[in-house]
Order: sequence, then C-alpha cells, then structure tokens
Amino acid sequence: MAIDKYILVTGGAGYIGSHTVVELIQRGFKVVVIDSLVNSSYDAIVRAEYIVRSPIPFFKIDLHDKAALNKVFDDYAIEGVIHFAAFKAVGESAQKPLEYYENNVGGAVALLEVMSTHGVKTIVYSSSATVYGDVSRFKDHNYLPINEKCPTDPVSPYGKTKYAIENIIADLHSSDNSWRGAVLRYFNPIGAHPSGLLGEDPLGVPNNLLPYLAQVAVGRRDKLNVFGNDYDSRDGTPIRDYIHVVDLAQGHVAALEYLKTLEQGQGLYRVWNLGTGKGSTVLEIHAAFSAVVGRELPYNVVGRRAGDVLNLTADPTRANTELGWKAKLTVEDACRDLWKWTMENPYGFQVKNFKWSLFNDPGAEVNFASRLNTFTFGDFSVTIANYGATIQNIAFKGRTVVTSMDKLSLYQSDDNPAFGATVGRYANRIRNGTFSIDGVTYHTDKNWRGHTIHGGSRGFGRQFWLGPVAKSDETHGTLEFLIYDKDGSNGFPADVIATAKFTVDEKSLRLEIEARIPESSPKDVTAVNMTNHVYFNLSSGETIDGTIIKTCTDTILESDPDYLLPTGRVIQYKQKLSESVDLQPSNPIDNCFVAKVDGFKLDTRGDEMQTIVEAHHPSTGFKLTAATTDPAFQIYTGDFVDIGPYKARAGFCVEAQRYLEAINNEHWNKQVILRKGEVYGSDTIYTFSV
Amino acid sequence: MAIDKYILVTGGAGYIGSHTVVELIQRGFKVVVIDSLVNSSYDAIVRAEYIVRSPIPFFKIDLHDKAALNKVFDDYAIEGVIHFAAFKAVGESAQKPLEYYENNVGGAVALLEVMSTHGVKTIVYSSSATVYGDVSRFKDHNYLPINEKCPTDPVSPYGKTKYAIENIIADLHSSDNSWRGAVLRYFNPIGAHPSGLLGEDPLGVPNNLLPYLAQVAVGRRDKLNVFGNDYDSRDGTPIRDYIHVVDLAQGHVAALEYLKTLEQGQGLYRVWNLGTGKGSTVLEIHAAFSAVVGRELPYNVVGRRAGDVLNLTADPTRANTELGWKAKLTVEDACRDLWKWTMENPYGFQVKNFKWSLFNDPGAEVNFASRLNTFTFGDFSVTIANYGATIQNIAFKGRTVVTSMDKLSLYQSDDNPAFGATVGRYANRIRNGTFSIDGVTYHTDKNWRGHTIHGGSRGFGRQFWLGPVAKSDETHGTLEFLIYDKDGSNGFPADVIATAKFTVDEKSLRLEIEARIPESSPKDVTAVNMTNHVYFNLSSGETIDGTIIKTCTDTILESDPDYLLPTGRVIQYKQKLSESVDLQPSNPIDNCFVAKVDGFKLDTRGDEMQTIVEAHHPSTGFKLTAATTDPAFQIYTGDFVDIGPYKARAGFCVEAQRYLEAINNEHWNKQVILRKGEVYGSDTIYTFSV
Repeated sequence: MAIDKYILVTGGAGYIGSHTVVELIQRGFKVVVIDSLVNSSYDAIVRAEYIVRSPIPFFKIDLHDKAALNKVFDDYAIEGVIHFAAFKAVGESAQKPLEYYENNVGGAVALLEVMSTHGVKTIVYSSSATVYGDVSRFKDHNYLPINEKCPTDPVSPYGKTKYAIENIIADLHSSDNSWRGAVLRYFNPIGAHPSGLLGEDPLGVPNNLLPYLAQVAVGRRDKLNVFGNDYDSRDGTPIRDYIHVVDLAQGHVAALEYLKTLEQGQGLYRVWNLGTGKGSTVLEIHAAFSAVVGRELPYNVVGRRAGDVLNLTADPTRANTELGWKAKLTVEDACRDLWKWTMENPYGFQVKNFKWSLFNDPGAEVNFASRLNTFTFGDFSVTIANYGATIQNIAFKGRTVVTSMDKLSLYQSDDNPAFGATVGRYANRIRNGTFSIDGVTYHTDKNWRGHTIHGGSRGFGRQFWLGPVAKSDETHGTLEFLIYDKDGSNGFPADVIATAKFTVDEKSLRLEIEARIPESSPKDVTAVNMTNHVYFNLSSGETIDGTIIKTCTDTILESDPDYLLPTGRVIQYKQKLSESVDLQPSNPIDNCFVAKVDGFKLDTRGDEMQTIVEAHHPSTGFKLTAATTDPAFQIYTGDFVDIGPYKARAGFCVEAQRYLEAINNEHWNKQVILRKGEVYGSDTIYTFSV
Repeated sequence: MAIDKYILVTGGAGYIGSHTVVELIQRGFKVVVIDSLVNSSYDAIVRAEYIVRSPIPFFKIDLHDKAALNKVFDDYAIEGVIHFAAFKAVGESAQKPLEYYENNVGGAVALLEVMSTHGVKTIVYSSSATVYGDVSRFKDHNYLPINEKCPTDPVSPYGKTKYAIENIIADLHSSDNSWRGAVLRYFNPIGAHPSGLLGEDPLGVPNNLLPYLAQVAVGRRDKLNVFGNDYDSRDGTPIRDYIHVVDLAQGHVAALEYLKTLEQGQGLYRVWNLGTGKGSTVLEIHAAFSAVVGRELPYNVVGRRAGDVLNLTADPTRANTELGWKAKLTVEDACRDLWKWTMENPYGFQVKNFKWSLFNDPGAEVNFASRLNTFTFGDFSVTIANYGATIQNIAFKGRTVVTSMDKLSLYQSDDNPAFGATVGRYANRIRNGTFSIDGVTYHTDKNWRGHTIHGGSRGFGRQFWLGPVAKSDETHGTLEFLIYDKDGSNGFPADVIATAKFTVDEKSLRLEIEARIPESSPKDVTAVNMTNHVYFNLSSGETIDGTIIKTCTDTILESDPDYLLPTGRVIQYKQKLSESVDLQPSNPIDNCFVAKVDGFKLDTRGDEMQTIVEAHHPSTGFKLTAATTDPAFQIYTGDFVDIGPYKARAGFCVEAQRYLEAINNEHWNKQVILRKGEVYGSDTIYTFSV
C-alpha cells in the first residue's frame, strides 16, 4: 500500500501560506497545516477547505513546542515542509527585536531539528527581498533589477531573522549535502484569491500599500499617505515589484516540484527571487486600484519614510528558467481580486455579529472540525455546528427554542434522532435501501429496520461539513457550508457537492440548499432529498404539549404505520391541522404533508415561498412560521426522542423536503433524481415572533 | 544599606570565562557564575575560588532554562552580564549547525529576555574576530590590521551565530537606547593563568595551535601539523594576533568599567577589538613555545587548511584609547604560563585517579560547596569533603577504616564530634575562651561547657573550605584546600589563610597544614593550632575494642578529668601505651601525649617525621602507623560518640597538634602564636598496611 505523503505548511493560515495551501492541494499535494494563530485566523483554513472542497488537517502549534511538532511528524508521513511561520512586521521588529529573533529564528531552528530527527530534509523557505537591503548602497555597481547574486544586507531585525534562517538552511545543507533547501525571496505580494474567499487580513493599520488603499476604499481609512514623490522615478514615487499572491503561491509549488525532480539522495541549497520583473510606482498602483474601485481614492503626499529606497524590482530569470515558473497575473488582476475580497470581507476574517467556538467535550482533543458557528442579531441567535451542518441552537429573546446539546459526542451517538441535522444525501426513508434509475438498481445503507433513513449511517447529518464561509452586513449574516460526498457513499451513486447556506437576521433563519454532481464524478446520476431536521419547542416546559399548530394543508402521503413508507396514495390527514390543532401525546404525528401537488422541479429556489406551518405556544407566546419552496414537509412530534436531557415530545419537526420516498415512485421521482449538469435546490425559512 | 550588586558571568567555567571571573573579583567586582558545564568543568570554578580566596556563587544552568535563569536574577541584584556561554568549535559548527544556532543564538535570546524582564540592560558580549571573515576578499582595499570598521562576513556557522548575536544586541539597543552593549571581538587567546591553576582544557584533539603544541610537549600528540608554509609571510606560515588570556580577561573588566562611566540611563552599542596589534607566524609561536619547553618540538608541514587566511592581525586602537586597555603580556609570557599550566595539569582538569561528587542529602538543593573529593590508588581510597576539609572516608582493601557518614546534614549537626574534620583555627581547648598575646586579651567563642573547643562553633571544621586543587601523577595525588578565616571569626584576632594539603598514595594519607596572616589583615597576631580529627576503626566490628595500640611515648600533659584542661605539669600516663595496650572500654583515653619536649617551632614541616602511634586490630590484621612533625598528639578513644549509626568507641583519634592549650602557657605558647610574616606548619602521615 502506498503511503500518502504530506507537505507540512507552517504558518499555513497566513496570507501567503493559505494561498499556497490552496495551490498545493489543487496541484494534487496532500497538506498538513500548522499555525500558532497568533497573527492569523483559522478562518483562512476554513475558507481554504471550502475552496478546495476537502478537509485540511490543521494543528494549532507554536514551533517552539517541539513535542507537539514531533507528534505531527509522527502522525503524518511528511515528505517536505514549506516554512512560512514568522512574525513579519518590519516596524514592529525594530521595537521588539528579541521577540522576532526568538519567534522566527528559534522557531525555524526547532522546526529544522524536528525535521532532522524525522529524516525530513526538504524545505521550501519563505524569505524576502528585504535581505538584499538597500541596493543603492553600491556606488559603483547597479544591481537593478535585483538578481540572486546581489549582496545581502538586511536592515531591520525582521530582515535579519529572515537572513539568519537562510544561513541556517545553507549551513545545514553544508553539514549534510542531502538536505534540500529552496529559499524563495519574495518581492511585494499583493492581491487575493479570485474566489473572494481568501486575502490579506492585516491587524491594525496596514503597513503595505494595497491593503491600506483597500481600507481607504471601504471607508476604514481617510486617505492614503504617499511617502515622498521626489524620488528619481517616472512620477517621483518609489518603484516596487508587485506580485499577485496566487502567482507567488504557485512559485512555492514550482519550487517543491523542482526539488522532487532531484535524484534520490541528491540535495540542494538554492535561492530564487519570486517577482514579476516589472516595477510599478506607488501612484501607478493607486491609479490601478482606483480604476477597479471606480473612483479616484484620496491620497496625500507626505515626507519620505525612513528606510525606503527608490527601486526594488526583481530579476526573476532564475526562477523563470530553473523552476519553469513565471508570474502570469497583472497588477490589474491583483487589484480586481483585492477589491472583490475587500467588498465581500470588508473586515477580513472578522465578521460582524459572528463568532465561533468548539464543542468542548470533556477529555476530547481540540478538534477544529467540531466548530460551532454563531450569528447573533439583536435577541435572535443561531448556532450551526460543522458536524451535520446541524442547527445546534436557536435562541430567541433569551430562550432556547430548539433541542440543543453541548457535547459533540451526544450528536454523534446512535441515540441522536437527527437533532438539527441537515440531512441528505437522501432524507427520510428508502424502502429496503433499494432504488433504480435508468434501469440501474442501487442499494443503500439499511440503517433503520431494514430500510435506509436520512441517507444512511454516514449521511450528511453525520459528517463534518466544510466551511462555513461567514459573511455579514448590519442586518443579516450568512453561513455557507459545503459537503463533498463521494460516489458510493452510503451506497449512493455519483459524487455530490452539496451546500447549505444559512441566513440569519434578527428574527429568522433561512436555509438554502443546493446540490450538484461535479463534472469529475465517475457516475452521472443520483437521488437527492435534503432537509433540516431541527426540533422546535416554543413552550416554557420540557415538552411541546400544548403547542397550537396550523398547516397549509391536511393532505398527506399515506404511509404504513409501522415503517412510515408511502403507499403511493394521497389522502387527508385524520385531524384538521389546517384549522389549528393542539399538539398532545394522544395524537402523535409523523407524516409527510403535501404542499404542492404538481409543477415539480428539481431546483425549487426562486419559486414563491409557501407558508407551510404556523405554530405557537401559550406559555411563551412565541410563534414560529415555516415557509418553503419544497413540495412537501414531514411533521414529527418527537414521540421517540430519548437522548441526554431530552425525552419524548421534547420538540417537533417541520421538515420541508420532497415527497416521501419519491425516488421509488415514477410520478414523484423527478423531484429527486439529480443528473450531472442539473442543480438540486430548495429554500426554507423559519421566522420567529411573539 | 547598600545592596551588593553582582556581575553575572555566563559560561564562567570556560577558558576565557574563568580567567575573566578571576580578574573581575580581583578588581573588586562581585560575581555570580552560571555555566551548563556541557563543555567545561566546575573544577575551573574551584580553581578560581582558590586563586581569589573566596567562594564564587555558581549555578549549573543552561540558558534555555529561563525559570532557573530568572531565579538567579531574582536572588542576586545583577547590574550587568558578561556573556561567554556558547559552543565555540568552528569545525564542529559546520557539522552541527542547528545545535550551534539553538545553543548560541537561542541561549543569547533567552538571556537577553530574562535581562530585559529584570531591567538589567548592561551586557559585555564575547564575540570573535571570526565575524570579519576573510579580509583578503577585498581586492581593492587592505583592511589589515583589522579595525572595527572592517566589513563583516562570518563564514562558519559558529561565526554566524556570533555575528547574529552582535546584531541582536545592536537591534535591542536600537529598540531601547538605554541598553548598554559592549561587543568584544577577540583575536587569538592563548596562555594560562600565571598561577598554573587555570588554563585551556580542550576536550578531544585541540583545534588551536598552542594547546596542540602543549600536548606535543607532554607527549599526548606526536607532532604539530603546520598547515601550509607557502603563505606570503616572513616564514611562509599564517600570521595571527595572539593575545594572553589574562590580557583578554582584563579587556572585559575594562569594557564593564567603561560602561559604568556612562551617565544614568545612557546607553551604548559599541564594538571593540581585543588584540595586541602584533602578528606572529605559526613558526614563531612554535619557536617561542619550544624555547620555554627547552627543546625543539617536532612539527610537520602539511597542506593548507580550508578556510585559513594569511593574516588576521587586530588594530586594537579603539580599545586602547576608549577603554584605556592594552595587552601587556607577550607571546613569551603566554608560552611560559601555558607550559606551567600544562606541566602541572597535563590533562587539564581531568586528574587521574580523582573524582568528585556531591553530598546528596535528600531534599537538599544542588550545593557545589558540598563536594566530596576522592583519590583512589590501587585499593586505597580517600575522600575529603569541602565541608571542614573533612576526611569523609578512607577505604583500605575494600573496608572503611574511619567513621564515615553520607549526609552533609549529619556533619553539620551539633552531635558531630568533629568526625574527620580539619580543626582550627585553634584545635582542642582554650580555658574560658580567653587568652592574651602581647598584653592584649582576646575572648573566643565558648562553645563547650564554658570553654572554647576546636576554634569555636564556626571553627575551620564547620566551614566550607575552598578548593581543592587536585593534581596527580601515577603514584600519588594531592588535594589542596584553603580557608580564609577573617579577623574576629569566633573571636580570634587577625585574618588567617590556612591550607590543608592532602596527599594520597596507595597506602597512606599525608596532611600538610599551613597558616599565615595575610598582609591585608587588620591585625598582626593570632593563635593557631590545627589538626585533623579523624576517627579510625581498624576492626571488623562496630567498635575499636580490641585494637592494639602502641605510642612513641607515655608522657602526657596532666589535665583535669572534668574539662581536660592542662595543669601545666608533664606526667607519665597511667598505662604503658609505649609497650602496646589493648583498647578496652574500661580504660578510656582522652589525653594529650607529648612527642617533643623542646625545640618548639611554629612551622615544623621539614623536621624529621616521628612515628607517634602504631595500631592494629586482630580481626582484620589492618595496621595504622601515624607519624608527624608536631610536638604533641591527643589520643581519644571516642567514648562519647553518639551520632547516626555511630555510638561510643566507634573510632579512635590520633590528633597530631601543639601542646594542649599552649596559648595560655608561657613556656609552650611559641608553638601557637602566629604573627604576620610568619608561617605555621605541620606535617602528618597516616600509613595503612596489613
């Protein structure tokens, strides 16, 4: 069996690190990320996972913690390291030199020691053009554009730490020629991921030109300060070599691949510049970004800044020829991507009214997959867990109105009756775990009394979803989760990529569901029926008894009482729920109500929302209104609940979905058969009031 | 009350560190030393203490152990640091670069952080001329002799770590201008302390010219390899600036004193070369050292060594003018001192047949003052504790023949009847703790039933002695202890410096005692009577009963039976010990026997040894012969012993000494009155046989 080899990326949650993680994975590398998160956000990893549609093993580790680092090397077969982790603020480094030396140099030495211990001798190192210092210091030689033979002379403690680490790697290679060290000296990285999901997230006042301009554009800063326009350049402002961060990230992949072309046991120590070879002035960048924004951004020329020099433009020939890498994107591309990133994430990874925490089961390891993502607007708060894209909590006016548990292990237990889970790939029952499409019969996981329920024992509600991409404005926030369910999962054919987008405002929770078969899927068709299985309780007591419920219809799909499987007949429910009913134990409900009788579509989003249920409880006065574009909804009064503090009738469900077991009914199955190129969609909203 | 301020010396047990510690203390600084002892020996501290005649607080600490380092800063008011601690082998650094970076740079950063935490901002840093690199690399500029403006370019990882740390200190000063950093760039330190007690102790094959030559001289190496004689110099061999280590050490003192001349709050970062300004070739050094040794040492010219350059000579002008420091000693001085060091310590601090350990009382902190120093020759082994210069153990043919305890706390307890202690300043009794010299009456500590015994409650037997200087050859080893007892100690007048030199061979233990009043003493006269109070037991049982003893005389000083104070009369003892007596409980002995009746001298060393006691025990056949130059000896059969496992008659004493209470007898007192300029001395030997 081939062992999966991993690339360890240190500082992989940072600006350049996170972009490199994405490029690596998209290039087919397996990646483990460590990051101390001291100056970065785990949300970058969340976004990266969302972009690459796969989980990324992550460990919150400071490099000085050699025990933790050793464990990562013990647990993963690491073939090489890309080392980003470092403090990187030039100005701060002059204020706190010891912290910089300890963190950067000390961290690198610890990393290299652990690598050495584990026989991992491949490192791509994130260095900087700052190691060249002021190239104009040479009176008798023009070193511009700067190639790798230019003498080094870093000025700031930051630059000195970068240079010291280059030397350490060089010395290590001298001590043992089988070491492979690729040192990449960056010029000025700019831009963001074209998806708008990843970008630079400077804390405090940005030190760099474009992040600063971006903050001017969104009104976080008044105007740009241009430090001197009396340099000997086209327009008097200094010239820098700005490189799109995605190009830069790809440079790391190229360096890693170059190292892999070496013979077995052959080592290398080599420095490469990563730049475009083209310089831009401050005013040119200002103009380019203003063009993208669509207005001239204000700026002010002030005095020169200490340490600034006229021109720092790379000669990237060595990387171009040796690594077969060349920057492809332009300053304009970078400005466009930065503007998209800024518009969609005006405060970077800080999202207003949003916070996340982790399930904290006693004795459990820190598990970043166990996130709990919470939006709060006014006195309405919703928490969605990555596990199952589960509505873990809804609090309205200080009261929890759903069944809510604080331990992941409870959600993962067999007793969990899908509390809050976003269920799929196929919600509700499939008789005998069997269905056919186009004459092909499929057998799915029979996880419930000989039948399949909620997509099988590893259905969507029992997997960790990727994301969420969290965004918000003043009035509402969105959380987008994604699951990439592979062909054969629980017996279903075809890969499915499903997303669940939760939108929260001060009184409602909306859930938009989408599913597609990706182009790369080995099979072309599957069955999809998705819903959320949240249990509501509007009362002040431990049961729903006394809840007054009113539905849009009394029409249900007839089902057998033992297995709740449909007979194919449409009948009237025995009670008049359409005229309000008081939910009581004597009348348990677990039936599929019919909201639409025709006009079935796979993607119902865009259809008019239909209010399917109104419910309230006299003890609190709380009222719930459920509306959906889906053609059916299961009402379940929770009579079989028995988990943790929750017993029978602890909550009731209004599960908007497709017709019960539609896949096995030739009249209904167009609701649930998803083919490559098609889109499954639904839209449901729960609104609370008093 | 003025707080004593200390200079912390890191790596103070190393070659340059230990010499600097000596110079600092001799210049009046108080010093705390830390050292990991990874590449150094605590014996250097032992020797330094011996030279400066005072204890030096020492902690075995690795700089990475910040908790331990913090505690030193908490416990001592440190005003500045001289930082030596580092790995220093250029060749090794190329093999193990990570270890060098971690130890040197990591250690320095940790030290600076702890200094910063404690507001200690003065550091003298041990750097090296190696940071200049190969000054011949400049084709268009002659940088010789090298001044501090010469560009830097260290080549080896060692040199790079030195340079990195210079930069860290510079950056720290830039971040906070009140820091005071003195960087001292050494040229080639050579030589040893003129006392012959301290010197370079290279482990393995020496990397440097003179240590190598020294090993050739004593036969540890065949011949010197001269790496190239085709350089462009007087004789074709490379030129270096060799500086005597004592001059170098004084350079540190000068730098520290220079920093102390700065205004309150004024900082500095400044680099100084420490060199002589005079270059010597390899062959010139070879000739100089051969001259000292008295024969031409063999050498062989081999090929050039990688990394060697023609000339590294300092321009020490800056240090000469700014620090008021100048190298005073010559290469010839250094060769002479190195040769003395080498002859007297052919294996450096490794002394054949010698080892030391520590009393290891449960729960006690590591206390380097509690050393146990052991020489073993054949099946004869002697252990002397620093506490009391106590004979802690004598083992003969596998059997312990003295009372021996394994806990320092037992030796320090009031119950300890001076087991093995080297007692002084005044052994035995002084009536009413009172005596007069030259008409002045002194009152000493009455620690025994209204009288003084064994010099008082803090007598020499209850203080920690300095040393030992341990030396050995194939046949015997010596341990020299020193105590500096101050005027007024236990009530005695005048400072006294006493030494106890123990010589061990395969069958005997010799103790030479010397005492003087140092020139600096505030008083000019005192009383001295010293002996060792070891308790022998030659039997195989728990008591001495059955020991057959024979003395050289039956003459004793009459004493009263209650207080054992002399009457002034000389009488015959009641038993005929001169004709052999079987020691039995019915005849306890505690009397002062007279070995010489006239010819009294203060320093009896050089007199013929007189056998005073022969003893043996039939159970083992072991025989003890005691001989001395002293005029008297106390025999005590241990009838009042009661400590730990030892009860009455656990051992017997033969304490060679001066006449009992001679100080209060006008006929006898010339034996014990010591005046400034005079020397007190005695010589005693215990020989074992079967």
